[in-house]
Amino acid sequence: MIDELKKYIEIVDNALDKYLPDESSYPQIIHESMRYSVFAGGKRIRPILCLKTCEMVSGDYTVALPVACAIEMIHTYSLIHDDLPAMDNDDFRRGKPTNHKIYGDAIALLAGDALLTHAFAVLNNYALQNPNKKILEAIEVIAKAAGTEGMIGGQVVDIIYQGKSIDEKTMYYMHNHKTGALIKASVLSGAIIGGADDVQLNALEKYADYLGLAFQIMDDVLDVIGNEKQLGKPVGSDAKNNKCTFVSIYGLDKARQLVQDFTKEAVEALSIFGEKSSFLREFVIYLSKRKA
Amino acid sequence: MIDELKKYIEIVDNALDKYLPDESSYPQIIHESMRYSVFAGGKRIRPILCLKTCEMVSGDYTVALPVACAIEMIHTYSLIHDDLPAMDNDDFRRGKPTNHKIYGDAIALLAGDALLTHAFAVLNNYALQNPNKKILEAIEVIAKAAGTEGMIGGQVVDIIYQGKSIDEKTMYYMHNHKTGALIKASVLSGAIIGGADDVQLNALEKYADYLGLAFQIMDDVLDVIGNEKQLGKPVGSDAKNNKCTFVSIYGLDKARQLVQDFTKEAVEALSIFGEKSSFLREFVIYLSKRKA
Repeated sequence: MIDELKKYIEIVDNALDKYLPDESSYPQIIHESMRYSVFAGGKRIRPILCLKTCEMVSGDYTVALPVACAIEMIHTYSLIHDDLPAMDNDDFRRGKPTNHKIYGDAIALLAGDALLTHAFAVLNNYALQNPNKKILEAIEVIAKAAGTEGMIGGQVVDIIYQGKSIDEKTMYYMHNHKTGALIKASVLSGAIIGGADDVQLNALEKYADYLGLAFQIMDDVLDVIGNEKQLGKPVGSDAKNNKCTFVSIYGLDKARQLVQDFTKEAVEALSIFGEKSSFLREFVIYLSKRKA
Repeated sequence: MIDELKKYIEIVDNALDKYLPDESSYPQIIHESMRYSVFAGGKRIRPILCLKTCEMVSGDYTVALPVACAIEMIHTYSLIHDDLPAMDNDDFRRGKPTNHKIYGDAIALLAGDALLTHAFAVLNNYALQNPNKKILEAIEVIAKAAGTEGMIGGQVVDIIYQGKSIDEKTMYYMHNHKTGALIKASVLSGAIIGGADDVQLNALEKYADYLGLAFQIMDDVLDVIGNEKQLGKPVGSDAKNNKCTFVSIYGLDKARQLVQDFTKEAVEALSIFGEKSSFLREFVIYLSKRKA
């Protein structure tokens, strides 16, 4: 698993380097700032899900490369904006100073805007070069997942309820949207580009839903029991910020149990793919045992 | 001219209302915030340029409606982010409180992100519903104009040089990118959707370049001699913020002369279209005489 992950992280990193604007292009600072956050040590979970789902369905991951890179750019923009003083005001991410701590709030804001814009430029250019309805369908899934029906909707609810108690339903909404939507779009866009049929898409949607939940709950768990050095950020920040999390609602033990339960559900959803799904199966298990 | 403008502003407003998410959709506050700024009294210069250029070339403006709306959403997002404390920290725009003064910095930031995301969702959905390479070509032009090669590049240079003196070349870069790029994309995307040939595209590119310059210089002039009530914002803010403008470099008289010169160049660029270009011709003249 680790070797396969390393291989695909390198594939993603090389493709991102190719699809991002050159650091030497004027005005340099914005391209430096974009690249700083894109290459700040992300785990590449979303692009890897996109590539490996496409590969499982079609046998070829390369056709999903521009899509996988665009998703990682969207993910990175959301982190840069999330870290800004106007939002979570975080100084560190993955053990490195956040974008605005290096480049200032204005450039960080624009670097986020630029990554979002560039993601759609890459996607549209891919569609323009390859007349193929599947690409436009994949873009539709990604655009919805990134917007107010998806990720932004989750962030809005996160802000509205900061410091307030929320019910279970609202917390599921928040996490399903804030984190889950783009994870699901990663799997589904890879599947669509790979030519998945409706039965396969339904199974993969279920897989992605459970993986997204398990992933988010594990994030909450690690914020309590994690190792600061491995996480690259202070633990206990959710409690400090009065955030409602799965741990604050269910307690640590039940939250850890839910990670196991949802991981199992995700694995089961893959059954129709048989042995071809070994990577996606092992990946969700790997994520459920991560330390950072 | 005024009647024709009113008619097209109404057409744009109705289309924006149709293409924006419903205010009643959860979470409501983000949709309210998006609509607050979109309907805060913008002059709709970009969408009208897009629609009227398309109409001049093809006889039908309706095919450009989703494109015109997406451009106005991108323009609006850029204003919301520009007004944030991290950027220009402006409290008023068009006589109304800026987005973050009403909704707070976090929601305003996300409303900008959401408008940018939604613009590309609208564009991509239009391409998905109408298999037509022209739409993808128009999206390419818009994406480049909105990114670091265009608008964002101009904003970055604006930030880098705040309070510093800049040479003429840098100021032209800044304005051509910050304001000019999206204005040019409005004209060109309308032309592309309308099926313009290369000769027409070249003429319209020239028209848009000169219109964009005349427009920006007029903005700088109005910041000095304008009427606060008509402008809906305080005059003298460029000088207060130590901004390099056409007026600070050339002086008021030469700046006003340049508006006239560039307007004349824009009109001349339209000559190949003959009488069909009467609206675009009168529009650039109208803009050069505006009071706000």
